[in-house]
Amino acid sequence: MLSKNTIKRLNQLTNKKNRLKESLFIVEGDKMILELAGSDYKVTELYITTEMEPSISKDKFPDTHIQLVSSAELKKISQLKTPQNSLAVCCIQDQYQLPQLLTESLSVYLDGIQDPGNLGTILRICDWFGIQHIFVSADTVDIYNPKVIQASMGSFARVKVYETEFAVVKSLATKSEAVIYGAFMDGENVYNQKLAKKAILVMGNEGNGIRPEIENQINQRVSIPNFSDSQQKAESLNVSVATAVLVSEFKRKL
Amino acid sequence: MLSKNTIKRLNQLTNKKNRLKESLFIVEGDKMILELAGSDYKVTELYITTEMEPSISKDKFPDTHIQLVSSAELKKISQLKTPQNSLAVCCIQDQYQLPQLLTESLSVYLDGIQDPGNLGTILRICDWFGIQHIFVSADTVDIYNPKVIQASMGSFARVKVYETEFAVVKSLATKSEAVIYGAFMDGENVYNQKLAKKAILVMGNEGNGIRPEIENQINQRVSIPNFSDSQQKAESLNVSVATAVLVSEFKRKL
Repeated sequence: MLSKNTIKRLNQLTNKKNRLKESLFIVEGDKMILELAGSDYKVTELYITTEMEPSISKDKFPDTHIQLVSSAELKKISQLKTPQNSLAVCCIQDQYQLPQLLTESLSVYLDGIQDPGNLGTILRICDWFGIQHIFVSADTVDIYNPKVIQASMGSFARVKVYETEFAVVKSLATKSEAVIYGAFMDGENVYNQKLAKKAILVMGNEGNGIRPEIENQINQRVSIPNFSDSQQKAESLNVSVATAVLVSEFKRKL
Repeated sequence: MLSKNTIKRLNQLTNKKNRLKESLFIVEGDKMILELAGSDYKVTELYITTEMEPSISKDKFPDTHIQLVSSAELKKISQLKTPQNSLAVCCIQDQYQLPQLLTESLSVYLDGIQDPGNLGTILRICDWFGIQHIFVSADTVDIYNPKVIQASMGSFARVKVYETEFAVVKSLATKSEAVIYGAFMDGENVYNQKLAKKAILVMGNEGNGIRPEIENQINQRVSIPNFSDSQQKAESLNVSVATAVLVSEFKRKL
C-alpha cells in the first residue's frame, strides 16, 4: 500500500523547487529504469507492479527501497497518461566538474531552450551522435523535468550536462582552439562549409534564437537551407530537428 | 456569447469520428490562422478575441462566420494549455488526386506513424526541405488530429498528404523510375550512399519500424550511423529526427 504521504511527496517532485530541495527526481518507463542499474545515478526508491518484478533483481539495486504496487497505485504517482510497470526515484547528480579542455570534436551549448520535449530529444540526439558535453544556460529547462527525462529515452544518464554561463564555454573554446558555431536563420549554408575539427555548436531558444550577448561571440553563423520553392513555406525548423541536422552534418564531415 | 452547443460541438472535433462526420477540423495559433487565408483550406468559423480583431480582415475570410469571444470563452473551446487569441474551424479537404508520375526528386511514405507530434513535425520537415508529396498508410495518425496540426506549424496546409496503400506507391515508383529507400537500424550508412536522383523514402512506425510486407519491397535499406563509442548508447533516434537527418542527406546530395 502506498501511503497518502508518499503519493503526495512523489507528485511534488514534478516541481523543480521540490526536486532541488529533496535532491531527487523521477524516472518512468521500464526500459529506462532497467538501464539505470548500470548508470551513475543512484536509485533510492523503486515502485513496481508484479509484471515488472521478475526483471528487477535486488543485486542490481542493492541500496534501493523496492516496493510492489498495484497498477492503480502506480497511476497515482505516475505523470504518464498510460503508466508502464515501474517508477524510480533517483538522486540528482552533483554538477559535473567542467572539463579543463575540450577533447571531443563537437560539443553543444543550449541557450535558453524552454520546451522539455525539445531538451530531452536533443539529449537523445547528442547521445546518438557521440556528443559527450552539453552545456546549457541557467534559463534552459531543468534536465530533471519529467518530460525531459521521458523524451531523452534514457540518454539523460549517458551524456554530461553542465549548467554554465556562456563566458565559461567561450574561454574553454579559446583554450581548446575550438571554433564556436551558432545556428541562425541567415547563417552560411552548412552543407557548403568546411567545418572545424574541434567545434562548439550553439542552439538558441525556440522563439528568440540565440541571445545578442552570445551572438556577438559566435565565430561562424550556419544555417540549414530551405529547399522549398513555393511562395508560402515553413519559416523554421523545430530546434531539436535543426540540432539533429546540424550535428549530423558536423559528424559526417569529421 | 458562445452557446453550450457550440462549445460541445467544437470540443467533439478532437475526435476523429466526429471530424469525419462533420468534415471539419480545428486550427489554433494566431499565426497559423492568418496563413490559412492564403491556403487551399476553407475556414468556416473563426473565434477571435479583441486582441486578434485588428489582424483579421473580412476580405481575407469572406465566407467565414467570425465571432468575437472572451479569453475565458476561447479557453473552453481550445485544446491548448495556453490558448492564443483565435481558433478556426476548417473544412477537411477531399483526398488529393494521386499524381500520375513522381516528378519531384524525393517523396516520403509513412508506414503507421502513431504519435501526432511526430507526424506534425515530419510535415514541417517536408515543407522545409521542399517535399511536396507525403504518402501515408491508412493506420497512420489522422493529419487533422489537433496535435498534428499544432506540431506542423502550418505546414499541413502547404504539403500534400495522400492516404494510400503501399502497393499504389510502389507502382508509382516503378512507372516513375524512382528508387524506394527504407530507414532501418541495420541499413547501409546513408552518408556513404550515392543516392538516386528520384527517390521515395519509407519511414516506419515508432515501435515496430517498417512492416514486413513493405520491407520486402524496399530497394535500398539505409541507416544513420551511431557515433557513440560508449558501451551504453542510445538505441534509436526519434522517427521525426531520423526523417530530418535522412531527408537532409538526400537533399544535400541532389
